[in-house]
Amino acid sequence: MKETKGNVIVGQSGGPTAVINSSLAGVYKTAKDRGAKKVLGMLHGIQGLLEERYVDLSEHIKDNLDIELLKRTPSAYLGSCRFKLPEIHDNREIYDKIFEILNKLEIEYFFYIGGNDSMDTIKKLSDYALLNGSYIRFIGVPKTIDNDLVATDHTPGYGSAAKYIGSITKEVIRDGLVYDQQNVTILEVMGRNAGWLTGASALARCEDCEGPDMIFLPEVTFDVDLFMKKIAELHKKKKSVVVAVSEGVKTADGRYVCEQTDGIEFVDAFGHRQLTGTARYLAEKINKEVGCKTRAIEFNSLQRCASHIVSRVDITEAYQVGGAAVKEAFDGETGKMVILKRISDDPYICVTDLYDVHKIANAEKKVPREWINKTGDYVTEAFINYAKPLIQAELTPIMTEGLPRHLYYTDITKNKDGQQLL
Amino acid sequence: MKETKGNVIVGQSGGPTAVINSSLAGVYKTAKDRGAKKVLGMLHGIQGLLEERYVDLSEHIKDNLDIELLKRTPSAYLGSCRFKLPEIHDNREIYDKIFEILNKLEIEYFFYIGGNDSMDTIKKLSDYALLNGSYIRFIGVPKTIDNDLVATDHTPGYGSAAKYIGSITKEVIRDGLVYDQQNVTILEVMGRNAGWLTGASALARCEDCEGPDMIFLPEVTFDVDLFMKKIAELHKKKKSVVVAVSEGVKTADGRYVCEQTDGIEFVDAFGHRQLTGTARYLAEKINKEVGCKTRAIEFNSLQRCASHIVSRVDITEAYQVGGAAVKEAFDGETGKMVILKRISDDPYICVTDLYDVHKIANAEKKVPREWINKTGDYVTEAFINYAKPLIQAELTPIMTEGLPRHLYYTDITKNKDGQQLL
Repeated sequence: MKETKGNVIVGQSGGPTAVINSSLAGVYKTAKDRGAKKVLGMLHGIQGLLEERYVDLSEHIKDNLDIELLKRTPSAYLGSCRFKLPEIHDNREIYDKIFEILNKLEIEYFFYIGGNDSMDTIKKLSDYALLNGSYIRFIGVPKTIDNDLVATDHTPGYGSAAKYIGSITKEVIRDGLVYDQQNVTILEVMGRNAGWLTGASALARCEDCEGPDMIFLPEVTFDVDLFMKKIAELHKKKKSVVVAVSEGVKTADGRYVCEQTDGIEFVDAFGHRQLTGTARYLAEKINKEVGCKTRAIEFNSLQRCASHIVSRVDITEAYQVGGAAVKEAFDGETGKMVILKRISDDPYICVTDLYDVHKIANAEKKVPREWINKTGDYVTEAFINYAKPLIQAELTPIMTEGLPRHLYYTDITKNKDGQQLL
Repeated sequence: MKETKGNVIVGQSGGPTAVINSSLAGVYKTAKDRGAKKVLGMLHGIQGLLEERYVDLSEHIKDNLDIELLKRTPSAYLGSCRFKLPEIHDNREIYDKIFEILNKLEIEYFFYIGGNDSMDTIKKLSDYALLNGSYIRFIGVPKTIDNDLVATDHTPGYGSAAKYIGSITKEVIRDGLVYDQQNVTILEVMGRNAGWLTGASALARCEDCEGPDMIFLPEVTFDVDLFMKKIAELHKKKKSVVVAVSEGVKTADGRYVCEQTDGIEFVDAFGHRQLTGTARYLAEKINKEVGCKTRAIEFNSLQRCASHIVSRVDITEAYQVGGAAVKEAFDGETGKMVILKRISDDPYICVTDLYDVHKIANAEKKVPREWINKTGDYVTEAFINYAKPLIQAELTPIMTEGLPRHLYYTDITKNKDGQQLL
């Protein structure tokens, strides 16, 4: 007979990935299987929890088919937030309120699926629990397409984004050869500070594709003049030139390349300038100065939501870290994040482990300089060996009427009283 | 014993699709199976043929696995061109030259996979053959993501592009709900004059997705002020608004909406202004005037090369029209294009037939006005019933090392003497 455990609550935070819901499925399934009384989902993370917006997941994930659909659904099923808790000593009230709500719901286990900022939430909540004698356990579940979390070998979400980027880079390279006409294509890849995603375009270099001609990561200062020189040289030798550039590349003066464009500027609700236009700026410059046909292709939001092509390694690991978080919390752990520990590249073997969340929160893992070549325009074999195992195999979408089927929570835009929120 | 037939040549022309190579596979396989002596492929269409650039396909498509890979390879395996033949009476020399080359190669059957302009080539070449007593037979194989060929129910290439657009629209809609924050997303879809692709975004409206909120096709004059008013109204009611707009929408003065942007302008080698920036322009305007977070997402070239998610109906029909072209030519037909004739929507039944290429070339099929709603901001049920059967079922890519495998011709950028061309 399985032991009965207390109530569980789980939330999702930060930018979504194609497999963030697979981690949610892992938390839910393992918690139910291991005897959790209730498994609640906070809507829009800690921000929604503060407004007592949550859902009893058992009412919505009804069977194993729902689990499979949930795993394959992009975006955060529970909604997400970008909400950073204040320091405990600056604002105890918010913590008191959170714990009051958690206690009212008789929560014993708290799981948060997210990146750096979300691990900061786990850190602060577990600290507060310790300071105040709360028995609630807090475990972080790693997630981000950016792959910039420290301590873990990689983050769930990265492998699928990398597979998507590798696949479409290959398709675009093929497409660039269609006309008997010289052309240059600039691919703009996500990743403001870390080049993991941009580097993944190198995966397109394989038996049947030569891959991008150059790759520029934000880890290396971007020299526009040198870039133009290299393009002009490639253009002298090749019919079709394809280059991947991170949206976050900066010139020596510390400015983003996309800031060189005038005109259109997007500012999001958090006041962050949206980084977009790097490829456009460079493509236009090449068009004018080199005088050939150019294309700018932004890989855009699809990088974080293309669930129609996911890595099976990734979606499986996303599920596993969710399950491992529950197991560890039920075993008494708190204030930790589940990490992935790679045992071997080939054959690829990777296991889960735990790591102190205090050493993870707010830190950022960049691509090591030695994984970028000396001239700063490609990743090395070491990078490829690292990334390649993470994009292996597929998990086919479940298709209805010709399109990938999703499981979604219909009342995501309503408050706890069922009113439509704006 | 199968009858021996003469030599075949096949070319690809115009913009590529995700399944244009499936038609090439259909031509090749059927021609070989039905006894063709040689099956040659002209490189970069008629333009390459004029430079005697061609390849013996048997040397490159070696077995049935190659056929399967070819079907799944995006972009034109043989390379493509945008080359319009002059009128016969204006320049007989070019025709004399083409026929001289064809005769030298002992070609009896000529197949051209393409859209409007390519059918013009078939028309002119078959006319010239008739006028000059040439026995060579010319048959057109329809292809275009734009679906703007007349006479045929639809064009191979459209279904896969529509499936891709439907799928990613659904994913982006899901993604738009991730934060508890109002936002407007503008999707920019290909199709300069015809709204078939933009309309396909409506396929995302299904059991588990409400679909885009509005859809604007180039068939209807675009009123920027009215658009802004509608957006503001939707914004008052909905958290996340997603709108699909054709790159080709024009205001009442006949100008493209993207021409309202200043700054960046791409001109391709044919002097065509590249239409891009419609979504960006509208998103920026909404950001400024409505004051919410906005995103502009260009569906870009992936629409014509996303072979990682194709419609099985489409890729199968693409193969069939290739095969049918060979059968008809071998049976003596010339100056025709293979068309698809729909027998029934549900169950979907479609057969191939032949149509006089003179009535097809240079014509353009737009979305009928009655398939767009009165207010001009969505497609009707009739459009959906038409498009839905075309995106059904999948043909999974053959994956190696985590990425879709392609079959490609390595010497596509070389001339007939093996020299690298620029």
